[in-house]
Amino acid sequence: MRIGLDVMGGDFAPDAIIEGAVDSLKFFTEDDRLVLIGDKVAILRKLEEMMVNPSMFDIVHASQVIEMADHPAKIFPQKPDSSIAVGYGMLKAGELDGFASAGNTGAMLVGASVTVKLIPGVLRPALAAILPCIDNRNCLILDVGINPDCKPEVLLQYGILGSIYAEHVLGIKNPSVGLLNIGEEESKGTPAIKAAHELMKDQAGLNFAGNIEGNSLFRETMTDVVVCDGFVGNVVLKQGEAFHKIYKLRNLKDDYFDRLDWENIGGTPIIGINANVIIGHGISKRRPIMNMLRQTREFAYVNLAQKIKEVI
Amino acid sequence: MRIGLDVMGGDFAPDAIIEGAVDSLKFFTEDDRLVLIGDKVAILRKLEEMMVNPSMFDIVHASQVIEMADHPAKIFPQKPDSSIAVGYGMLKAGELDGFASAGNTGAMLVGASVTVKLIPGVLRPALAAILPCIDNRNCLILDVGINPDCKPEVLLQYGILGSIYAEHVLGIKNPSVGLLNIGEEESKGTPAIKAAHELMKDQAGLNFAGNIEGNSLFRETMTDVVVCDGFVGNVVLKQGEAFHKIYKLRNLKDDYFDRLDWENIGGTPIIGINANVIIGHGISKRRPIMNMLRQTREFAYVNLAQKIKEVI
Repeated sequence: MRIGLDVMGGDFAPDAIIEGAVDSLKFFTEDDRLVLIGDKVAILRKLEEMMVNPSMFDIVHASQVIEMADHPAKIFPQKPDSSIAVGYGMLKAGELDGFASAGNTGAMLVGASVTVKLIPGVLRPALAAILPCIDNRNCLILDVGINPDCKPEVLLQYGILGSIYAEHVLGIKNPSVGLLNIGEEESKGTPAIKAAHELMKDQAGLNFAGNIEGNSLFRETMTDVVVCDGFVGNVVLKQGEAFHKIYKLRNLKDDYFDRLDWENIGGTPIIGINANVIIGHGISKRRPIMNMLRQTREFAYVNLAQKIKEVI
Repeated sequence: MRIGLDVMGGDFAPDAIIEGAVDSLKFFTEDDRLVLIGDKVAILRKLEEMMVNPSMFDIVHASQVIEMADHPAKIFPQKPDSSIAVGYGMLKAGELDGFASAGNTGAMLVGASVTVKLIPGVLRPALAAILPCIDNRNCLILDVGINPDCKPEVLLQYGILGSIYAEHVLGIKNPSVGLLNIGEEESKGTPAIKAAHELMKDQAGLNFAGNIEGNSLFRETMTDVVVCDGFVGNVVLKQGEAFHKIYKLRNLKDDYFDRLDWENIGGTPIIGINANVIIGHGISKRRPIMNMLRQTREFAYVNLAQKIKEVI
């Protein structure tokens, strides 16, 4: 598998990104190749400083950088040789099997929709995140940030996309799917959530477990997949981060709370596009970048995009 | 202060409710009186079993009970002598300074709007919950369940109502108010959230601190008041409960995580109505009922409803 990495994206780019890339090589086999995309001079300087042979990587020069403050929708025509644009161009040309960046999230999303594009039949893409549960399962929640307002049909489809992810990436057969809501009863929630409940209940092949409340998240009562709009999902994910930070601050020691550390997970894939793309946290340093690349490689091997095409 | 308690509401009524009432007497002074509302025979039997002198309380008989499964909007005409209806009747007649119930939440909300009614000028009531923060502050989040979809004007007013609460109940001068969102930038969020941000920014007298993200909840970076719609707030509150349960399950011992226990807090007040009303968790047993009554008494002394009337 050929995995592309935007070395210019993220608050600690390019140094921490390159450090994470070097660490990630231990997960790569001889069938894999990591492609560093960015300022070639900076990349070579950093590799020399780390005493790493540049031939361990392919290096593709990109002369421009999309900054965190750049406007996602307008920046691609202005920066056609940015590392993100180059990465998406390679994905589209079939020169990469996966692509990862901790850069401008909006630009990553725009790049996905204008270059590799949505899988036909997919209404809206989603960002999916792993929530580690107390019973050792890794469960999935989507969307966690792309669509703050979701139509019922989109929520239904997130249930289907999430099921495909849970089956093929997490290895869960017939994954249960819950709809995040403010009560167990069907009559609860916003009009969109109530309508989504009706649609999900009637969807053949979906293992719909009904509404799930906030007090089941991260617990043994969480469904394998939890569907919600990107506003609620974003708050849930970040509140999990808050509790991990509190746990560290209180100097507690516990295997479960250690699993909550987002740095161990890596990034969040964009689900529903014609490519395997993972977005990392902007504040990622060496370890989360390493994990993001491990995850991107696994993702490319599973080829979730292809699995979705077969079902949707 | 005369505090009314619905002894028939809650999964463990009436026994656990009466036990909590007895325990709560230690917080009551000679100026206070706790009024038990419900089945007089059951109340007297339980007090006798506990060897508690019934003269410690006023007892008001109510011959009917609103069950958890009863439809909130339809039940009052059918059960005019239910403990909730009797309690609200007494509140309206000025025979109580505060009222608490762990019964049917929907019925408590309907009862509030049809009997004691909204304070003129208040657009929608809210349920407000305390989030204990790592830096020992108790912060406020609203709404946590009444309005899953909120118009921008309602969110603005929640900021104002929350500020009044934080100042008078929590004792915070010029409380900071944050808008829960999926990013710090003004351009983030749903159309309603963006419009609310504009309104809050321009509101004279409101100490608006801008957007606040999920990873600031429960932490030193949380604003004194956090405004959100009742869907997101409900998930946040219940996710906090989930982490407290996980903490207990992992057999950890920590003062901060102990503070997360909802049983120590009691209940959630209905903000914006012409009375001091607190709703308890349906699963409340002895200790949370005691704390709900302590809280209701404090609430009655502050008389938040009056404070709101003076401002709105």
